[in-house]
Amino acid sequence: MTAEAAPANAGFASLDALVRPRSVAIIGASDEPARIGGRPIAYMKERGFQGELWPVNPKRATVQGLPAFASVEALPSAPDVAIIAVPADNAIATLDSLGQKGCRAVIVFSAGFAEMDEAGAEAQERLTAVARRHGIRMLGPNCLGVFNDAIRFYGTFTASFEKGFPIPGRIGIASQSGAYGTHVFAAALDRGLGAPVVITTGNEAEVALGDVIGWMAQAPEVDVICAYAEGIRESRQFIAALDLARRNRKPIVMMKVGRSQLGGAAAKSHTASIAGDDTVTQAVLDEFGVVRARTTEEMLDIAYAATKKIYPARNTLGVLTVSGGAGVLISDAAEQAGVEMPPMPEAAQERLRQLVPFCAPRNPVDCTAQVTNNLPLIGEFAESVARDGGYTSILSFWTQTAASRSVGPSLKEQMRKVRAAYPDRLWVMSMLAPDKVREYEADGWICFEDPSRAVTAIEAMGRFGAAFARAEQPAPEVPLPQVTLPEATPSEAVAKALLAEAGVPAVPEHACSDSEAAVMAAEKIGYPVVLKILSPDILHKSEIGGVLLDITDADAVKHGFATLLERAKHHAPSARIEGVLVAKQIPTRGEGGAVEMALGVFRDPVFGPVAMVGLGGIFIEVLKDVSFRRCPFDAAEAERMIRSLKGAPLLDGARGRPKADVAALAKALSALSAFAAAAGPRLTSIDVNPMLVLPEGQGCYAADAVIELEGGSH
Amino acid sequence: MTAEAAPANAGFASLDALVRPRSVAIIGASDEPARIGGRPIAYMKERGFQGELWPVNPKRATVQGLPAFASVEALPSAPDVAIIAVPADNAIATLDSLGQKGCRAVIVFSAGFAEMDEAGAEAQERLTAVARRHGIRMLGPNCLGVFNDAIRFYGTFTASFEKGFPIPGRIGIASQSGAYGTHVFAAALDRGLGAPVVITTGNEAEVALGDVIGWMAQAPEVDVICAYAEGIRESRQFIAALDLARRNRKPIVMMKVGRSQLGGAAAKSHTASIAGDDTVTQAVLDEFGVVRARTTEEMLDIAYAATKKIYPARNTLGVLTVSGGAGVLISDAAEQAGVEMPPMPEAAQERLRQLVPFCAPRNPVDCTAQVTNNLPLIGEFAESVARDGGYTSILSFWTQTAASRSVGPSLKEQMRKVRAAYPDRLWVMSMLAPDKVREYEADGWICFEDPSRAVTAIEAMGRFGAAFARAEQPAPEVPLPQVTLPEATPSEAVAKALLAEAGVPAVPEHACSDSEAAVMAAEKIGYPVVLKILSPDILHKSEIGGVLLDITDADAVKHGFATLLERAKHHAPSARIEGVLVAKQIPTRGEGGAVEMALGVFRDPVFGPVAMVGLGGIFIEVLKDVSFRRCPFDAAEAERMIRSLKGAPLLDGARGRPKADVAALAKALSALSAFAAAAGPRLTSIDVNPMLVLPEGQGCYAADAVIELEGGSH
Repeated sequence: MTAEAAPANAGFASLDALVRPRSVAIIGASDEPARIGGRPIAYMKERGFQGELWPVNPKRATVQGLPAFASVEALPSAPDVAIIAVPADNAIATLDSLGQKGCRAVIVFSAGFAEMDEAGAEAQERLTAVARRHGIRMLGPNCLGVFNDAIRFYGTFTASFEKGFPIPGRIGIASQSGAYGTHVFAAALDRGLGAPVVITTGNEAEVALGDVIGWMAQAPEVDVICAYAEGIRESRQFIAALDLARRNRKPIVMMKVGRSQLGGAAAKSHTASIAGDDTVTQAVLDEFGVVRARTTEEMLDIAYAATKKIYPARNTLGVLTVSGGAGVLISDAAEQAGVEMPPMPEAAQERLRQLVPFCAPRNPVDCTAQVTNNLPLIGEFAESVARDGGYTSILSFWTQTAASRSVGPSLKEQMRKVRAAYPDRLWVMSMLAPDKVREYEADGWICFEDPSRAVTAIEAMGRFGAAFARAEQPAPEVPLPQVTLPEATPSEAVAKALLAEAGVPAVPEHACSDSEAAVMAAEKIGYPVVLKILSPDILHKSEIGGVLLDITDADAVKHGFATLLERAKHHAPSARIEGVLVAKQIPTRGEGGAVEMALGVFRDPVFGPVAMVGLGGIFIEVLKDVSFRRCPFDAAEAERMIRSLKGAPLLDGARGRPKADVAALAKALSALSAFAAAAGPRLTSIDVNPMLVLPEGQGCYAADAVIELEGGSH
Repeated sequence: MTAEAAPANAGFASLDALVRPRSVAIIGASDEPARIGGRPIAYMKERGFQGELWPVNPKRATVQGLPAFASVEALPSAPDVAIIAVPADNAIATLDSLGQKGCRAVIVFSAGFAEMDEAGAEAQERLTAVARRHGIRMLGPNCLGVFNDAIRFYGTFTASFEKGFPIPGRIGIASQSGAYGTHVFAAALDRGLGAPVVITTGNEAEVALGDVIGWMAQAPEVDVICAYAEGIRESRQFIAALDLARRNRKPIVMMKVGRSQLGGAAAKSHTASIAGDDTVTQAVLDEFGVVRARTTEEMLDIAYAATKKIYPARNTLGVLTVSGGAGVLISDAAEQAGVEMPPMPEAAQERLRQLVPFCAPRNPVDCTAQVTNNLPLIGEFAESVARDGGYTSILSFWTQTAASRSVGPSLKEQMRKVRAAYPDRLWVMSMLAPDKVREYEADGWICFEDPSRAVTAIEAMGRFGAAFARAEQPAPEVPLPQVTLPEATPSEAVAKALLAEAGVPAVPEHACSDSEAAVMAAEKIGYPVVLKILSPDILHKSEIGGVLLDITDADAVKHGFATLLERAKHHAPSARIEGVLVAKQIPTRGEGGAVEMALGVFRDPVFGPVAMVGLGGIFIEVLKDVSFRRCPFDAAEAERMIRSLKGAPLLDGARGRPKADVAALAKALSALSAFAAAAGPRLTSIDVNPMLVLPEGQGCYAADAVIELEGGSH
């Protein structure tokens, strides 16, 4: 689906003028280098911007030594990009002048719009309307701007350059928050990581985070994208951007805040974000292999490792260590992170044991401190881990050895040689040698002091690799059914029929108006059956004894039919009785009993229809053990969702049960997603709960279903 | 219980000679400073050890310039401590000589003992026997030794001092692994953290990790203990040590590896650890407020923060930030870590809003970048957070502002003043200003670049504080019952009766040999009842229809009694029939139904009887949602265990159920723990499953119970 929906790269290239301009006008240019309207000029002068720089200031002939223009109209031509650094009151008129001049890209520093109050929000709408009328790509308002050191363009008033301008590097930062975006930039700089392209989106009146990520996904300046989001405001460009980045093998590390209830509250007070539910965002990020960082440090750890551009599609980790304790610690971290550490081949283990009798050669491969007495062994062990183990990622733990005057140089040389012989591997060094890090990095190593942080980064590279590999497969076709929604919210029976037609089976049942029909229905469905009183006026059937279980023969059907009518007459004399519902009785307890699941769909305000699956009852309500996915998706994806549940072992025969028919459940879930995608925006939600899953080969049946439509009730 | 069981500080002071000796003999002393027998001498000469240094070497008159002794016998007197650096073959004889000389503390570097093979394990047993005969405290064998820079004592052959000797500090490191212990020492040194006391325990033939932690818990050299464990070998000293550290308000941060299955496998191949089950160890650590670090970096983060000795018993976090985004990120991290962030008082919020109109004063308090234009506001905001918010911990996020030439100095001065006015608070600074960290630390700040790491450290301080506060309460008395275990593993009925007597109620039931007795029993118990065939030869009653539910009157009892006997005769003609069991029927479904729980006890090889509670069925088997605790404990502790379960909301009326009788369940769990503690070592395990918990006020009943005894079966 997504492949078809994605626009060509050129769509995102419409931001080129914003990030890679050849001429820049600064409206509200200041002669003071420290003022908001002065900083871009000061930075570009200092760094040597490669294009034209046109300050606009009606009161001055020159600004910071450059000839100034009295107005937008006075500019020699339309600038590639204009920076609006005037008060909010003047911003709209200025934007209009720029549009008339032919300018098609604008960065609005001015604050006092939607982030402030209702009046500001209205002003922002007027501003945006002007931008759209002229076809202007507009960053902001209320944004810190953008910089691209590749061409020395500094369309920003950040104060972040006191400790230095960007160093060369391959990381791009896309951030909804100016303060946080430049914080990440500065934190990277402190670590020696180059992030020369930073784009902050502010109020996102026109250009949103998705546009910026999409631009980076196709821009040669950027290999790795660090993104910061408080809430995703639009989904089309955002999803197209994630898809493009994945197809172009550019990893995205995202800090999405507001995941906690607490954080969610703060996010809403901070911006007027239309924050989609965090769980849905997470599902979308998972879909495209975006790795969500838990901390800023983790974001930079992952970005740092990613700059090597080695993304194993099926990641395995080999660990070489001089400390058994560290080996165990790393094994713990790898299992926690879900990184596989297969053992070394037996023959290789045997050979290593002959080299160092008390080594532990399985994996982690502990060559023990013995090797420091016989240095060539280091290389032999490393070589064996790479060659015999065949691991895609190799983590080498050397604690202080790398800093040792006696052993360090030989260690470095031997490891360098082995690394160079296997350049396709992700080689990571964990060592306590701050002074040596730059030297090892020059040899191509990824260096972490803490081995646990190394494991986190290694896991992320594997996740990127798996996502990139998936992107190479043709997108699965999910045929959409023809769906005609009723005028009003349908009854349970109509809802089940609609879904059954779309491939979501319901418990077989028939409405019968007399006992002969009931017997025929029961014989057709097969015993045992359930009888339920059928009346639009009796909502809680069980309260009046209106449900009879374990009906096993024709006599019992007849007797039961009479009993139900009698009870209805007695307890609800004024109710309209339409007859009796005869339904297949699905056993839920005991040997061959069904597992109770719940399926659902709801319309996310940003991402549209989203399907959910969970184990019934307590699993959903108490443990929140559910999985989400954008609609539609195929049965294979549905099965991945089901398998990702913590309670999934229940479907695989836990507690002595037979295996449940997961294939049928996956098919039904996929069909539900296709139904939701085809139903259009009037569909508000669907609840299929319980969905009873019988043992393998016996299918699954919706025992209840509710479809809610916009504004509709019956 | 623990308070009584803990030995006086003096017990641990028996390690004084090992860590704080006035005279040191080195047996196997080498003239080569780089050899194992040479390093301790070289280090102590370089650092200026304050006591006597006696090299023992039969072949040399001097060793590294010091007069050497030909033998242990030739020493001028018994040394406070002797270092044995001779081959394993000679170690036992050397130890014996030292014992005869009157030496009572020995550090054994020699390897080739239990870590090697069976023969080594036997040699270690002989070595240990010699140590015990002489009353020698013995560290090792196969250990890297100990150092205590306070008196310049270096009883170690570590190669870790290439990058420097310890700097002053208050951290002690106790490690089962020499390589990892010195790795932590070196990692601390790289961060400017002083860890002048390091003790590594090697094979732990005599002195174990518990002794070392206990020594640090009473030693004035140490405020904060970093411990590394692969497996806990003995519990008495270990628990006494944790208890003493807690009572002396010394926090312990522990890295316990082998938590994963993978890691567990590696831990066993690395040492011959008798590793107690990780879950049990975790329960013991939780009991004493030991914080378990997930990574080495986290261990040092927590130790660093702990050196301030501010441990809030009820921790609340106030956050002051210049970035809204960072505020949300910190809120997310705090919620994740379980740190409370109560809002600022309304009046204070109003006042701050008047100072900076667009600030967000709730908590996180976002004073916005506006304050950098009006610097005195910084102090006013910080003061308000401390004074009005009253938070015990305050995290202040200033990103690069602290490094700014224009704003930085004023920021530092204002924050210094406020910090000094509230010295009892845990003040933490998150900033991107590596060059300024030492200056801020000199002002008393705890500094982290990453705010998420700051939150983790802050959470740990609160956990320490809560544990220290609990230690001030008198230990709850848990009266132990008189328990007389039967000769052999008892039947279900006997097991239930034994437990019921000890305060673990069982479902009321009576064995009845005729139908009159059955009717009397049913009337006494109250309807509905369950009837079960009673025969030692029929194990699976339900298979022959030997269980009847929903018996509601005397007639049904009589009829049921006859039915069961008939069925037994038919299906199991040779079975001995003892009659029928009449039991109270506890409803488990529907409105007033019971919640199914499971209680259990098992004997951990290290920590003795450990009790467990979990929600029945899938919760235990699929989700491993259980809580453990050493026996015995009181009902309040039992309730804390129950409340810690993920599924606990089920007991509190989730899904429309009535609240369950948690008080009765807690009482039963505590009674079970007392029973297990009183039963002695013959008790192997107890399973009470299901334990049916009725609505509040109606109690709980064991529906089944199994008690297993050592070697016993019936």
